[in-house]
Amino acid sequence: MVNKQQIRGVYLVTDRPLCFHHTLSEVVRLAALGGVSLVQLREKESDSRTFLELAKHLKEILTPFSVPLLINDRLDVCLAAGADGVHLGQSDLPWWEARILLGDDAIIGLSLETKEDYLSLMQTHPNPDLDYLAVSPVFDTNTKTNTKPAWGLTGVTWLKDKTDLPVVAIGGIKDSNAKAVIQAGADSIAVVSAICSAENPKLAAETLSKKFPI
Amino acid sequence: MVNKQQIRGVYLVTDRPLCFHHTLSEVVRLAALGGVSLVQLREKESDSRTFLELAKHLKEILTPFSVPLLINDRLDVCLAAGADGVHLGQSDLPWWEARILLGDDAIIGLSLETKEDYLSLMQTHPNPDLDYLAVSPVFDTNTKTNTKPAWGLTGVTWLKDKTDLPVVAIGGIKDSNAKAVIQAGADSIAVVSAICSAENPKLAAETLSKKFPI
Repeated sequence: MVNKQQIRGVYLVTDRPLCFHHTLSEVVRLAALGGVSLVQLREKESDSRTFLELAKHLKEILTPFSVPLLINDRLDVCLAAGADGVHLGQSDLPWWEARILLGDDAIIGLSLETKEDYLSLMQTHPNPDLDYLAVSPVFDTNTKTNTKPAWGLTGVTWLKDKTDLPVVAIGGIKDSNAKAVIQAGADSIAVVSAICSAENPKLAAETLSKKFPI
Repeated sequence: MVNKQQIRGVYLVTDRPLCFHHTLSEVVRLAALGGVSLVQLREKESDSRTFLELAKHLKEILTPFSVPLLINDRLDVCLAAGADGVHLGQSDLPWWEARILLGDDAIIGLSLETKEDYLSLMQTHPNPDLDYLAVSPVFDTNTKTNTKPAWGLTGVTWLKDKTDLPVVAIGGIKDSNAKAVIQAGADSIAVVSAICSAENPKLAAETLSKKFPI
């Protein structure tokens, strides 16, 4: 069973085309060695079979580290791979359907693109059965397309003040701004290229992890 | 519970961009009125939320007709929509994982692109827990890209002679060649544009249904 307390610290979101120096598997292994607390497998282009095989492989790599593996969007890949949960966007399957299909132990996170996304969630589900809320994007980024205007640091603080759920900040986070995002209220910082594209993903993960107060 | 005997007759595979004269929902309703025995929702471009909403809507339309709804590839959409099963290609999730996740009552069909696909299936699973095998494509077609060379009518006969599972023929089937495909051994003919693009989908479905011997 997953320790849901792990939604804190550095959260690696994968992006294979951005893995310049190592394979994705190696990036994930090194990032786990470097202390990331969560990994999300995001595969926008690959077919379902490839997606599943990657998920199974990453799950094997992460199990010894007790680092949960989340799957972006695809509940079926999560179920078939025995992953620990899913990260859902506003146009993915609804999180309450995910909760029914994955069960109580699964980690389910929901991306909020705007304050309106949060307010409408509260209207329908004042106590949503979710494990974290993600502010996406905090900063403008090139790794996700079609995102709405960035929330900024004030957006992170706004959400942190409103919710008891862990707040994950995603989008444009790197070494130079990580501390500010944490100080603004993020329980977890999700990074893509800051680790995927690093020559030394272990060191990158370590350095980011140290930004969190002990 | 679904009657698996329904894997016979006309099998509509949806393609929204090819629905020139009616909405997809209306095409499906008219096709059911015209006697199609199976519908597969195929959505290659839409996001998961849209896919699920469409699936739920088509399920509502088809329930009064007792026509099963299959989902292309996405087991999670199938589960969340309460659809009757999935159609899987060679690069989709493995059918045995689908059987575990969907259970015994689900209809699970597997697309075979080549004779080698069939032979390797037999090597690993001499009695596969599948509900049909699809010969894809029988004829060259524009509605699916990246398909391997067409099986032709002799391919349909080849597979029919080898397996006890229902054989579904898909790809380039229309009014003018449907009879030949059935005579070659197809238990079911899957059509896309022949119904989706028809001005009168009900009549198109009726006409194709009449090609089957009573």
